[in-house]
Amino acid sequence: MGELSKVGFMISAITEVRVRYQETDQMGVVYHGNYFTWFESARIELLDQLEYPYQELEKGGFLLPVLTCEARFIKPAKFDDRLQVTALINTSPLARIEIFYEVRRNEELLAKGATSHAFVNEEGKLIKPPRDFLDKANKHFIDSPED
Amino acid sequence: MGELSKVGFMISAITEVRVRYQETDQMGVVYHGNYFTWFESARIELLDQLEYPYQELEKGGFLLPVLTCEARFIKPAKFDDRLQVTALINTSPLARIEIFYEVRRNEELLAKGATSHAFVNEEGKLIKPPRDFLDKANKHFIDSPED
Amino acid sequence: MGELSKVGFMISAITEVRVRYQETDQMGVVYHGNYFTWFESARIELLDQLEYPYQELEKGGFLLPVLTCEARFIKPAKFDDRLQVTALINTSPLARIEIFYEVRRNEELLAKGATSHAFVNEEGKLIKPPRDFLDKANKHFIDSPED
Amino acid sequence: MGELSKVGFMISAITEVRVRYQETDQMGVVYHGNYFTWFESARIELLDQLEYPYQELEKGGFLLPVLTCEARFIKPAKFDDRLQVTALINTSPLARIEIFYEVRRNEELLAKGATSHAFVNEEGKLIKPPRDFLDKANKHFIDSPED
Repeated sequence: MGELSKVGFMISAITEVRVRYQETDQMGVVYHGNYFTWFESARIELLDQLEYPYQELEKGGFLLPVLTCEARFIKPAKFDDRLQVTALINTSPLARIEIFYEVRRNEELLAKGATSHAFVNEEGKLIKPPRDFLDKANKHFIDSPED
Repeated sequence: MGELSKVGFMISAITEVRVRYQETDQMGVVYHGNYFTWFESARIELLDQLEYPYQELEKGGFLLPVLTCEARFIKPAKFDDRLQVTALINTSPLARIEIFYEVRRNEELLAKGATSHAFVNEEGKLIKPPRDFLDKANKHFIDSPED
Repeated sequence: MGELSKVGFMISAITEVRVRYQETDQMGVVYHGNYFTWFESARIELLDQLEYPYQELEKGGFLLPVLTCEARFIKPAKFDDRLQVTALINTSPLARIEIFYEVRRNEELLAKGATSHAFVNEEGKLIKPPRDFLDKANKHFIDSPED
Repeated sequence: MGELSKVGFMISAITEVRVRYQETDQMGVVYHGNYFTWFESARIELLDQLEYPYQELEKGGFLLPVLTCEARFIKPAKFDDRLQVTALINTSPLARIEIFYEVRRNEELLAKGATSHAFVNEEGKLIKPPRDFLDKANKHFIDSPED
């Protein structure tokens, strides 16, 4: 589920989540599928930090659906927990964007995950990312010393 | 929450629901907000029985958002329960449509509810119901004997 | 749906919600059932302000299920909206607790709602509220001048 | 995401899902996280076919939380679609159970997925599967000819 240390490119964002009763199940912990909603919150925050809010993408006719998603659950999140959800991109986004996630309750790592995405138009056809999106993303690309 | 016995007009539909683990919460019962999703399933079934599937409404540019909704919970629904959800309209639909619901586990009444709806266009403006929708609905209107 | 102005007792809490993509539906607005989850968030905040977090209630063997719930939708909430959700109690809680809600997007009122609750034990039997809960709640009861 | 053809052991179950409006998002398709709820429905059906309903597991003090989950989305599912969701186990379950999923709309494959699970007790500690669960599962194990 990804090494976060690739040199050269890195952007991340953290969002705080307070666990809702609705998100629990009768096992007394958060239902696994709900972590993907938290990943979404962190991903939206990440796009905000790229100065390219998801809303603007959609207004421009670009959608960014999920192609694959995965999660690994280490310790359960519980009702009323205050969690920190991190989203991180460590490779320059091209046709495909890969994002990695961690869910923490302070020091404790509760879950890890990943999603991959591609840009599509409103008819669902794969398209190139918007030019200014790449420009904004690439500001976060740090040339390696030997360049 | 409505008397279902008004003379003259009546249409109802039943849908079967098997309770999902995801729908439970840590109280060990179904989270209250999820009943509205079951009401939706029964409402969709009701429109099918009117021979006016909700899909066709939307394709024709008609949306039917929820204006009000309410529920009263009598006994809790539990994981893996097989439930019968009834939706019922007892007044000829005009600008506003009122629908009543019951959730049963065989003989037991678990919950009652109601929603009201109006037709809006894609910009969210109130509009008249489609002509053929009213025609189809009014086939279920039975003239009372004294008429 | 309740007048909030009864003299003598009043406690309220506001929670901020940022609308999740997951909470939208294909109408492009928030699915109606999800407002009840936001009401829950405001209710949890309200109990925090009463210095009686819901968690403590449950640890003490007291559950507070929803008996009835209702909502009226005035304007739709949309993806990425920042909303203010208010919960308010205006009568001293006894066997039954009534809570009123408003959802605002700054100056705009989007929805109103109400829930009622009763204390039950882990077997689901109606029980009296915990003594110290009533004590804490009644600190918010202001004797009217003529008393 | 797994080859389903391992010799010797195989058990599968199919469940029908009719897509709910609540499951869609403003992209006009089903929100990705909701597929995991459908996987759950197929998994519950699979345990029924093993003659070991999940309810009985929990009543016996055995929980079967999700350790990992993943999905790959090929074509979007849409409101009101009638889908066939398959769950399949192809290795004899031991401490860890791996389950594979497919979501189809008749001939079209919409998504594939997998979950892994372990038995834990009510305190969340890893425990061995119940003896009779293994017995029931192993009835589905077919000795290969060369044994």
